[in-house]
Amino acid sequence: MGASAFVPGHVTVFFSPHWADEPAATGATGAGLTLDHGVEVEVEPAGRTSVTVNGEPAGMAPVERVLTVLERPAEVAVETPLPIGAGFGVSGAATLAAALAADATAGGGRTENELIAAAHRAEVESGTGLGDVVAQARGGVPIRLAAGGPERGRLDGIPAAGRIEYLSLGTVDTPAVLGGDTAPVAAAGDRALETLSAEPTLPALFAAGRRFAREADLRSERVTAVVEDVVQAGGEATMAMLGEAVVALGRGLSDVGYDATTTHIHPGGATLREPVV
Amino acid sequence: MGASAFVPGHVTVFFSPHWADEPAATGATGAGLTLDHGVEVEVEPAGRTSVTVNGEPAGMAPVERVLTVLERPAEVAVETPLPIGAGFGVSGAATLAAALAADATAGGGRTENELIAAAHRAEVESGTGLGDVVAQARGGVPIRLAAGGPERGRLDGIPAAGRIEYLSLGTVDTPAVLGGDTAPVAAAGDRALETLSAEPTLPALFAAGRRFAREADLRSERVTAVVEDVVQAGGEATMAMLGEAVVALGRGLSDVGYDATTTHIHPGGATLREPVV
Repeated sequence: MGASAFVPGHVTVFFSPHWADEPAATGATGAGLTLDHGVEVEVEPAGRTSVTVNGEPAGMAPVERVLTVLERPAEVAVETPLPIGAGFGVSGAATLAAALAADATAGGGRTENELIAAAHRAEVESGTGLGDVVAQARGGVPIRLAAGGPERGRLDGIPAAGRIEYLSLGTVDTPAVLGGDTAPVAAAGDRALETLSAEPTLPALFAAGRRFAREADLRSERVTAVVEDVVQAGGEATMAMLGEAVVALGRGLSDVGYDATTTHIHPGGATLREPVV
Repeated sequence: MGASAFVPGHVTVFFSPHWADEPAATGATGAGLTLDHGVEVEVEPAGRTSVTVNGEPAGMAPVERVLTVLERPAEVAVETPLPIGAGFGVSGAATLAAALAADATAGGGRTENELIAAAHRAEVESGTGLGDVVAQARGGVPIRLAAGGPERGRLDGIPAAGRIEYLSLGTVDTPAVLGGDTAPVAAAGDRALETLSAEPTLPALFAAGRRFAREADLRSERVTAVVEDVVQAGGEATMAMLGEAVVALGRGLSDVGYDATTTHIHPGGATLREPVV
């Protein structure tokens, strides 16, 4: 008996990492956009866990870890239109979707918060992400007010709907960046969260993101140039954290001639798919 | 500049009312199902608030109240396929959708939690509901672990997707029921929440609902007869709280010959609609 789940993509716009002894209290405050472009996962129980991504065998440490913790080894087929390792939360989405679907294959018995907590811990312990899972569980435009899994974290959101464009220029090694000195990043992220809380709108989110990228010194020249092209033309764009990628509101990227991909703010969060009868 | 929002319907399966001096801490613990059948609201700013439901002028106290508190008087057009006053959360959905859309007409500036809190308070102060708004904001199959608005409440959910059928047999006067002696209801609701927490699955939710309806003495003979028809045939059904209505999993009602309406568990919560450009 297989099961399927969908989890939206997630672009972090700014963040402040919070480290704790417990993985449940480790995570990141910040804000971002969840996207209609996300991850579809099909799970079939199996003797040991294996993962394919868009049909190709792939190692995905947090997926393997969460299924071990849940004691649900399975064949996991991940399908996604998103670029991988580029700041779109594919790893968090695959981990949360695999947890939801794997629990369902056994008739359920765990709550959403329990499965979100397990997926969050698996991402933290694998060093692949700090805040995607809880954001993807909520959907919309999540603000992470307190870091950590559902036991410890606290969320709000910017009410919003609309078209988003994105452009991926390459990959970033998340574990390498998160393993370095993150104090300047944390300070910039805390300031951005304060600014956004005073004016929780989409334009303010993009402006906070641009300032964060500059202050935290995370921008490449290529990303900076693309963001500036969009802003010069009156659009809203910012860098996807952590990725060599740009996201823009509406037609911000295509209006200035980039061959961008179109998606939308996703209205909901992670969800099981209805079994096809 | 108008704006639109969608909020899923919500059937409470069991509940325990919690009264406090503050409306933000007043509410209900319990569990229920959010539904694809919901409420679409269009809001146009106006000098004073007026409401239509499916094209007909209608009084909706919590909608008027929330727009007064938000200082956004508006013409509010509510469209819904759901029966009204029958336990499907139309009043909570209209109030939350009106709050989201009215804030958007002015360019936004309030967070989701702020708008959910305002809608929750308006429902509580109007005596029209205790737990629908926070459940509808989350979507899925929400479990309300702690009562109240987002400042005080605590939510979890049963991971689930699937077809739901419903049958409305008449209306119930929510303010009259909530104004009576609710101690037996609270005791039954607390027991149901404990049972569901030990086994958070859809079949356990329906079983807890049937036991709650019996122990809280809220069933009419008609509702009891329909629920028993479905259960006798091996299906899952329970009463919609507070309504003269029955909800069933899958094809539970149509399989035993009732002319039921079909909808599905809604995967997401309340959301703005993207403006049509």
